[in-house]
Amino acid sequence: MNHGHEPHHTMNLNLTDIRDDALAARVQYLIDHKTKPLGALGRIEALALRLALIQGCETPRLDAPQLVVFAADHGIAARGVSAYPQDVTAQMVSNILAGGAAVSVLARQHGLALTVVDCGVRSNLAPHPSLIVAKVMQGTADASEQPAMTRRQCEDAIDHGARILRQLPGNALLLGEMGIGNTSAAALLMARLTGLPIEQCAGRGTGLDDAGLARKLEVLRRSLALHATVREPLDILTALGGLEIATMVGAVLEAARERRAILVDGFITTAAVAVAAALAPEVLQRCVFAHCSAESGHARWLHYLGQEPLLNLDLRLGEGSGAALAWPLLRSAQLLLAEMASFDSAGVSERSE
Amino acid sequence: MNHGHEPHHTMNLNLTDIRDDALAARVQYLIDHKTKPLGALGRIEALALRLALIQGCETPRLDAPQLVVFAADHGIAARGVSAYPQDVTAQMVSNILAGGAAVSVLARQHGLALTVVDCGVRSNLAPHPSLIVAKVMQGTADASEQPAMTRRQCEDAIDHGARILRQLPGNALLLGEMGIGNTSAAALLMARLTGLPIEQCAGRGTGLDDAGLARKLEVLRRSLALHATVREPLDILTALGGLEIATMVGAVLEAARERRAILVDGFITTAAVAVAAALAPEVLQRCVFAHCSAESGHARWLHYLGQEPLLNLDLRLGEGSGAALAWPLLRSAQLLLAEMASFDSAGVSERSE
Repeated sequence: MNHGHEPHHTMNLNLTDIRDDALAARVQYLIDHKTKPLGALGRIEALALRLALIQGCETPRLDAPQLVVFAADHGIAARGVSAYPQDVTAQMVSNILAGGAAVSVLARQHGLALTVVDCGVRSNLAPHPSLIVAKVMQGTADASEQPAMTRRQCEDAIDHGARILRQLPGNALLLGEMGIGNTSAAALLMARLTGLPIEQCAGRGTGLDDAGLARKLEVLRRSLALHATVREPLDILTALGGLEIATMVGAVLEAARERRAILVDGFITTAAVAVAAALAPEVLQRCVFAHCSAESGHARWLHYLGQEPLLNLDLRLGEGSGAALAWPLLRSAQLLLAEMASFDSAGVSERSE
Repeated sequence: MNHGHEPHHTMNLNLTDIRDDALAARVQYLIDHKTKPLGALGRIEALALRLALIQGCETPRLDAPQLVVFAADHGIAARGVSAYPQDVTAQMVSNILAGGAAVSVLARQHGLALTVVDCGVRSNLAPHPSLIVAKVMQGTADASEQPAMTRRQCEDAIDHGARILRQLPGNALLLGEMGIGNTSAAALLMARLTGLPIEQCAGRGTGLDDAGLARKLEVLRRSLALHATVREPLDILTALGGLEIATMVGAVLEAARERRAILVDGFITTAAVAVAAALAPEVLQRCVFAHCSAESGHARWLHYLGQEPLLNLDLRLGEGSGAALAWPLLRSAQLLLAEMASFDSAGVSERSE
């Protein structure tokens, strides 16, 4: 990779491999001796084990969960790839902060701290206690005409994400995003990272009709052709990504380094995790995929990444709404591991076979 | 039906049909003007609409949700149809009341009032403020040798369920159950109510091996042959059911009459709902199916009933654990309908198409 300047950040991409057969066996023993038939809590048991491995202990806790919505605009949106005008990014950030968006309601329901990061919204947003301004520029350039950002801008965004994460308390990160046009950026990243044809990656986003989808695919094909030689993860992110996605990559890498549990939302946040995992595969060990989105590429991408999501509710909203909806399942897994009685302690007979 | 005595209860089986096109249109309008792309909250939107129709208003509430665990023993368990000894029913009731069972942990997590009803546990249980004794007898008779109960006992159990429900506050009922052997009773009810062969109804329950499953199927075939002429829902319940299932039928019918939302758990609670729906089909309008159990017949029964469950997590525990895990989704649907801003109120632009 030759990008014309020295890296100015010091992201450490060497993540610990958190697999630990001895710990896994101890946790599985605890789970198997809880007062229930063997395996009867199904995927919730696997979730408890995952959480124990992330935290490296038999009794994981979940403290001060942070739902962070990464927001930015996309130059490619000017090509008519979304059903909504670009101004909606800023309007929805205001709505999220004012408490009226879906993710606002769900964060209140579950006691999740909600922070919005302005990673590159086109307009300047009014200050708010829950808004962090980490704006690299006023939206990306149009990736169908030039790289979405410079390598330096991409690294700045990644740095911002890591620094923001370091300042947030707790041990669980729920990923959210807002950015008109960002299913286009995510689909471009998916196509290049997986090698799948763009028709299998791009979908209707917030609700394109057939003509809109055809237009979107044409713009995305042009973008991929323009950047046909770009192959390394950070080069792909620079050429085709978004500022909220790049900032999220930094946040995900830092959260993974700190061994926070990372609850992944839909298609866009999966894009950020996929880029981070291309840089450091151990990222996926820390991730729980909240749901399979109705955005058509998401199921395929999850399959490609070898991940099975918790929920399948035809969501396609983003904002972190799916992560918030799945949050109580992660909490349940933690509480069941911590609080359920064992056959011994409860005086319940084991199997008669 | 000739069962030798006058019905001594007055269960009114005429339930209101709660379909209301005008209300549905008004609620759909509200949902469609929330600040999100059309339909982007997927099945959560359908859930909000369902709840509005159940309560007959545009702004449904969820008050004092009640998780009720109906417990009883089964004569057929003596035939070795379960991996666990019958004493486990009473032991697990104690464990639930002591706070150590999965459902205890989940009820605490979500602030659900948890009540256990002794509908016919073989032993006498120690008094507890959250235990209601509505014992018809000390477990059913063995349905492979004689009817599981008398028609009078079945009606008593139904009456108990209705009376208990009337005394519980709130407008949401989460169904749970505990009873060693009750997947056998549920499979028998399924086979007779749906006409499907018993192999498509019965599964491994709490964890039978291949030999155990073969033994269970043989006992169930004998039971169905013995009661081959029984066709009416209450006769089927009398011959093949369980006391916790019959009590639940009464509770479900009463909850439906009061237009409470009914959150159905797994295979056994589906059996109760299926019997209730055979008596009054409008019951299903009030039901939300929490999850598809790993018990093999459940997916098929849900399909037969035309119901799509919310979760698919390979659960097969019962107790109401799946209903409790799905509860926050129902709450989310209610809160999103009540609290999300509209495009107008939030000043967000609508679609540009």
